[in-house]
Amino acid sequence: MAPPTPRVVVPIDVKKKPWREAPLHNRWHRTYPDSEMFFEGELLSGDGGPLDWGSLTHYLSGPVKVIDKEGIPAKPGDLLAVEICNLGPLPGDEWGYTATFDRDNGGGFLTDHFPAPTKAIWYFEGIYAYSPHIPGVRFPGLTHPGVIGTAPSHELLKIWNDREKKLVDDGHQSLKLCEVLHQRPLASLPNAKSCLLGMIKEGSSEWKKIANEAARTIPRRENGGNCDIKNLSRGSKVYLPVFVDGANLSTGDMHFSQGDGEVSLCGAIEMSGFLELKCEIIRGGMKEYLTPMGPTPLHVNPIFETGPVEPRFSEWLVFEGISVDESGHQHFLDATVAYKRAVLNAINYLSRFGYSKEQVYLLLSCCPCEGRISGIVDAPNAVATLAIPTAIFDQDVRPKSGRVPSGPRVVKRTPDVLRCTYDGDLPITMNPGGA
Amino acid sequence: MAPPTPRVVVPIDVKKKPWREAPLHNRWHRTYPDSEMFFEGELLSGDGGPLDWGSLTHYLSGPVKVIDKEGIPAKPGDLLAVEICNLGPLPGDEWGYTATFDRDNGGGFLTDHFPAPTKAIWYFEGIYAYSPHIPGVRFPGLTHPGVIGTAPSHELLKIWNDREKKLVDDGHQSLKLCEVLHQRPLASLPNAKSCLLGMIKEGSSEWKKIANEAARTIPRRENGGNCDIKNLSRGSKVYLPVFVDGANLSTGDMHFSQGDGEVSLCGAIEMSGFLELKCEIIRGGMKEYLTPMGPTPLHVNPIFETGPVEPRFSEWLVFEGISVDESGHQHFLDATVAYKRAVLNAINYLSRFGYSKEQVYLLLSCCPCEGRISGIVDAPNAVATLAIPTAIFDQDVRPKSGRVPSGPRVVKRTPDVLRCTYDGDLPITMNPGGA
Amino acid sequence: MAPPTPRVVVPIDVKKKPWREAPLHNRWHRTYPDSEMFFEGELLSGDGGPLDWGSLTHYLSGPVKVIDKEGIPAKPGDLLAVEICNLGPLPGDEWGYTATFDRDNGGGFLTDHFPAPTKAIWYFEGIYAYSPHIPGVRFPGLTHPGVIGTAPSHELLKIWNDREKKLVDDGHQSLKLCEVLHQRPLASLPNAKSCLLGMIKEGSSEWKKIANEAARTIPRRENGGNCDIKNLSRGSKVYLPVFVDGANLSTGDMHFSQGDGEVSLCGAIEMSGFLELKCEIIRGGMKEYLTPMGPTPLHVNPIFETGPVEPRFSEWLVFEGISVDESGHQHFLDATVAYKRAVLNAINYLSRFGYSKEQVYLLLSCCPCEGRISGIVDAPNAVATLAIPTAIFDQDVRPKSGRVPSGPRVVKRTPDVLRCTYDGDLPITMNPGGA
Amino acid sequence: MAPPTPRVVVPIDVKKKPWREAPLHNRWHRTYPDSEMFFEGELLSGDGGPLDWGSLTHYLSGPVKVIDKEGIPAKPGDLLAVEICNLGPLPGDEWGYTATFDRDNGGGFLTDHFPAPTKAIWYFEGIYAYSPHIPGVRFPGLTHPGVIGTAPSHELLKIWNDREKKLVDDGHQSLKLCEVLHQRPLASLPNAKSCLLGMIKEGSSEWKKIANEAARTIPRRENGGNCDIKNLSRGSKVYLPVFVDGANLSTGDMHFSQGDGEVSLCGAIEMSGFLELKCEIIRGGMKEYLTPMGPTPLHVNPIFETGPVEPRFSEWLVFEGISVDESGHQHFLDATVAYKRAVLNAINYLSRFGYSKEQVYLLLSCCPCEGRISGIVDAPNAVATLAIPTAIFDQDVRPKSGRVPSGPRVVKRTPDVLRCTYDGDLPITMNPGGA
Repeated sequence: MAPPTPRVVVPIDVKKKPWREAPLHNRWHRTYPDSEMFFEGELLSGDGGPLDWGSLTHYLSGPVKVIDKEGIPAKPGDLLAVEICNLGPLPGDEWGYTATFDRDNGGGFLTDHFPAPTKAIWYFEGIYAYSPHIPGVRFPGLTHPGVIGTAPSHELLKIWNDREKKLVDDGHQSLKLCEVLHQRPLASLPNAKSCLLGMIKEGSSEWKKIANEAARTIPRRENGGNCDIKNLSRGSKVYLPVFVDGANLSTGDMHFSQGDGEVSLCGAIEMSGFLELKCEIIRGGMKEYLTPMGPTPLHVNPIFETGPVEPRFSEWLVFEGISVDESGHQHFLDATVAYKRAVLNAINYLSRFGYSKEQVYLLLSCCPCEGRISGIVDAPNAVATLAIPTAIFDQDVRPKSGRVPSGPRVVKRTPDVLRCTYDGDLPITMNPGGA
Repeated sequence: MAPPTPRVVVPIDVKKKPWREAPLHNRWHRTYPDSEMFFEGELLSGDGGPLDWGSLTHYLSGPVKVIDKEGIPAKPGDLLAVEICNLGPLPGDEWGYTATFDRDNGGGFLTDHFPAPTKAIWYFEGIYAYSPHIPGVRFPGLTHPGVIGTAPSHELLKIWNDREKKLVDDGHQSLKLCEVLHQRPLASLPNAKSCLLGMIKEGSSEWKKIANEAARTIPRRENGGNCDIKNLSRGSKVYLPVFVDGANLSTGDMHFSQGDGEVSLCGAIEMSGFLELKCEIIRGGMKEYLTPMGPTPLHVNPIFETGPVEPRFSEWLVFEGISVDESGHQHFLDATVAYKRAVLNAINYLSRFGYSKEQVYLLLSCCPCEGRISGIVDAPNAVATLAIPTAIFDQDVRPKSGRVPSGPRVVKRTPDVLRCTYDGDLPITMNPGGA
Repeated sequence: MAPPTPRVVVPIDVKKKPWREAPLHNRWHRTYPDSEMFFEGELLSGDGGPLDWGSLTHYLSGPVKVIDKEGIPAKPGDLLAVEICNLGPLPGDEWGYTATFDRDNGGGFLTDHFPAPTKAIWYFEGIYAYSPHIPGVRFPGLTHPGVIGTAPSHELLKIWNDREKKLVDDGHQSLKLCEVLHQRPLASLPNAKSCLLGMIKEGSSEWKKIANEAARTIPRRENGGNCDIKNLSRGSKVYLPVFVDGANLSTGDMHFSQGDGEVSLCGAIEMSGFLELKCEIIRGGMKEYLTPMGPTPLHVNPIFETGPVEPRFSEWLVFEGISVDESGHQHFLDATVAYKRAVLNAINYLSRFGYSKEQVYLLLSCCPCEGRISGIVDAPNAVATLAIPTAIFDQDVRPKSGRVPSGPRVVKRTPDVLRCTYDGDLPITMNPGGA
Repeated sequence: MAPPTPRVVVPIDVKKKPWREAPLHNRWHRTYPDSEMFFEGELLSGDGGPLDWGSLTHYLSGPVKVIDKEGIPAKPGDLLAVEICNLGPLPGDEWGYTATFDRDNGGGFLTDHFPAPTKAIWYFEGIYAYSPHIPGVRFPGLTHPGVIGTAPSHELLKIWNDREKKLVDDGHQSLKLCEVLHQRPLASLPNAKSCLLGMIKEGSSEWKKIANEAARTIPRRENGGNCDIKNLSRGSKVYLPVFVDGANLSTGDMHFSQGDGEVSLCGAIEMSGFLELKCEIIRGGMKEYLTPMGPTPLHVNPIFETGPVEPRFSEWLVFEGISVDESGHQHFLDATVAYKRAVLNAINYLSRFGYSKEQVYLLLSCCPCEGRISGIVDAPNAVATLAIPTAIFDQDVRPKSGRVPSGPRVVKRTPDVLRCTYDGDLPITMNPGGA
């Protein structure tokens, strides 16, 4: 019996600009003529998920057409079981960064409190990450791809575009979230600017047609996509619905580590990485296992199984939040408001231990913290909790009698987070260590 | 050195009606003349957290005034560290129930999908619970008190009453949640009906004054209260702000087990139980450790540390939801809508394995499932996930090629969930085993 | 359907001397006329596993005859599946002790290094134990019965007595262990002295016959017995072979916590406790599942499944030992010698952090440390490891650059372990807190 | 600040025969003229730990001389803290094997029961291993280097050689282990045959001198060495004593996975791999933290801390063994005999589920099972346990009522373990998939 041999299907040269890399794309669409072919069960290796930044997000590898051993492609209505076999930073490129964007450039969950762009660089020592910009913490990464999804059918794409356009058209008056969230973009509608479609020549009529209707990759949708679920890590398996022949699987946005919610938006530790996948086609599985939650059979969501090697922590410090916003206004069972308050509580608390609030905001975006919906029925207060493993700190951060933590740390060992210019000033392929 | 001896401070006789039990109350107010005294550091044992049901929720034990070894009570601005030392069902009463309420009687998170009242009885075998009404599952309990909190000050009580009244006054037009949630009560304002105030004589002038302003116990607020956080279990420690002299700690609503969100409202496994606590006063700790998130210094939330004996599971099946509701309408980063969809996805999925949807709804309310806020920044879709430990089932519930799970189970071993009358028909102190 | 109701089958009054308690016994024998009856599947509750001490060990509750719902007892060749449903200290008696014996009174694993008797008292705070005699540590208990087993048949009893007598007769010259182990008793042969046989009248002819052939309870054997396996805790299930009609299940020797190996002999935290069991008879299961490892079909060993609520630790400090003894003598793949060295290494190491070696010896006997056979094939050195969870200490006990741990602790907060008289001076039923 | 960059210090070409690879050696000795230099704190990467087999074991990479940032080497008496940053199979070579040797060629722990050589090939799918020769199991690897150690001083080397020679000279009459263990080699004394000393020319006078006194690498000793401790995995940190200037760190024998004890001798999943390390010198730490357990200050053992990403399992089936051997002979507190019996019990048990005993023997050597010393004081029976995570099987292997597991599996899906010739017939660098 021949053993499975991982096959590099999407080689990336991170020294080149992404738009010169043939297999990259940054839009969801049902078809690309240049799909790679991939046999069910085979190990698929991509040796360089590209970095993710700015207005171009996300550069995706693929799409890969999945076929079974008889050569029959995955079909609409099938379920594609994708196992995350292995993944990690690119050898020789063991670093990443986490950042917040300017309020006028996308912002983040707490952009009203933290309107300025900042970033922190993280270095990897095997399973661990540490940052000179946020000293005194070190944690094992729960490494995962931020984006993994199948291509939408024409019908599903139309549903997406219609409902998101309606949201934008209805505008902010329909919203109840606290003021600052209102100021963030409501949705990113199709836009030919910066559209990257793999081998399809920019400016061609085919390119124009697709670029003007293909979906942006920012939000998670029915096809999976930018889920940013930190537990889609080593050994996990995600079941994706198939909407087009071959499934056309795309992936990218490699994260060394991320906290639940990825609160600062560009909040995971973004890195260049490799990814190995294995696929199985469950014939008819989409219909068998996924129940539509909407007016069409396409309103489904993926499911997944976690892997067995997630980092173990035994002690967690947990912050609660309820759905009363910072102005004291009572919201009705709003888990988003409750989570916002839990995150703010954690930031304020940890800033007593020698950190600036900007440092903690970045830290909670990328460390292995857990965001929970703890209570969702006891009107009017939803309760959300944010749990932080205490082992990531080199000091005891629990409340104690007789301790006065609120003073500055006696020795501030390293610089604070980096201040950035408006457009992010994000590192791309250079190793910033010398900066 | 004298060893610590747990002292029973709130003895309960579950055979009697709660309103004949002196120390019970079901409202938050700053003072009761009959507070028990409790020394800091001492083990406090309550031997019968009363059952919780219907319009009277919740019957609380206490309040207990906490003083230090010099006899000085906890003061406003202190932090009360309460360790959950031990807890469990009352010996001889090893059973509980989980229920949904009628849509017109409080409803639940999914009351638009499940408008009728149902219940299931659970029996305990040591750490495990099983139900004849939901066969084929058995899980260890993460036992916890649903309610634990300190008494509000006069000022804090006014803040609560004002903001919740405003919510009710503004009415449903201010809300954006899908229609059915609108039909649930927005808040439970102070109401003298069924008010229970311990030893204060019902109908007395003192009783009337308090009953008309004291807060209902349904929602979690700044004082802790009905947090329904399943991880407040054995060995955990919660840090509660102190608003009145002595802290006036109350607790109750014992849960043998609960899922994150307690989605069916009366969704935990409600039981009679005992609880042992130990307290430490952190002088000035509220100001030191909690940062107000609102217009007054009182807008704080408790924090807690988890305990080391939570049940371990290594395999989880995870359901995703995004903030598009069942009608296909796009919401903006709404974690409540996303979680609702994740829960519905899980219910639909598991109903393929021989269960009715009502059974799964009750099961997800009380089994040790985890609700996560996975993505909260990628506009417009919030992503929530619901993770279910697969080990609680006696069958393999993962998706598989070539399996046809959607047929009925060959042998339906036991009856389905029980249908109830409008007002719940909930068991109280009788052991319902013979029913 | 009637719910299962735990039934107290062995009530104990710890205020009385054990030999006045009818159901207690301290010998293994195939039959007692006063066995309790117990239905398969029923919850069996013993409300006071008696304390264990001195030359009388162990006082066992039972034996209990197990029968199925048709009234047919367990039969030889069956397998008895016993689930540990619940257990804990007796309410009101939340304390225990750990001790070493005098070298001439039984000694312990390291009696050559620690020949004098010592003890430490532990108090329980819910799931945690702490001791005034070993300050600065606190840990959750992995509570378990030290002894659980079925009665031997006549044939099996004879095998035991013959092989242990042969060991004693062959004497120390046959041994290769380092000198000091030689000085401990090789085995405890049947002995009528202090024999306790439940309701059988002491001195009667029946008593004499049994007392002179019944097996002492010290060692673990084919029937289970004094396994001292700390993982036989809440939620675990042990499969015991059945050798006599009804199985005649006995249990006792309640431990609040124990380290692997229970190195100081009376090394677990011994306590008064209660225990709830549930039984299932697997007909023919002994033959089906257990393979004899010896000349008769009786040479079998129990198997068990662990429970899901063992305390979680994420950081362990691990000490290695090889099979070279303290004199530098090389032994051949001897895991006992290797483990002895690992334990000594741990004691020496931890004594640098402000503890006496006697304190650490007691601590390693009762804290949740893990003893592993790591290497058993690479001649001539077996490798054993002892892993200690660092979270049980209130200081960081890991090696560090530039730290000088070996000095005395600045403040010695409490007294050291208690020195005892020859015969142990062990507390029995009095709460020693006032001592 | 410059980021740490892993530096390849020991490049290996697995296509070449090991003895043509300059930096490899297979003996412990205090000095080699060709040590690599390595700065404390730097990440050290070896990109091909060679395969391990037959009479030449083990091919080690290094030695590496460790110096601090001032250029001062580690000194005798220091402690070398080595963090296992990352490790894994060589890309493109994702497979390994586990094997038993012929009884006359080294044997294994159970060579009396399994005298013939066998092997199984394992393929890796990311974190998982599976084998066509042992179907129905799949498990995540706890990948680790089997060998990691520092060079011995002249004095320590002499202690080793003396005590092992004495063992061989005293011969088998000094042993008490069951007969078959007697027939295994007692120790592997220095032997110039097949000696490999890196760049030192074979046959030169220097080579001859060293080859005749350097220690074989088979057993674990004071310097660490062939510990075969499966928990020395990703994120763990081992503290090694330093005996010579520069420490002279060597490592190799890469294991994808191993069970406690590695019972079949060549029992781990042996593979080609890479390893990244980071070192810190704790000056004086050997004297500070390690206490000699023997006649000289050199009789010490390393200690280590486990890492946070070990695979999680929540259900274990545990087999017990006592120190009575297969002939029924009673041994005195012998943990080796007890563990042997526990392993045999497990093999016999699992062979009821469709496996040959040879398959289970290999499986228990390499799957993540845990071997515990559970009881070591209750004379005369030591108790050892072997715990197997049930999740590695694709069938339920727990005892059940009414099941007849002992019949053959209906479908034997793949061939059994491979039979080998006397000298192992082990694969080396060829991918055996086509075989």
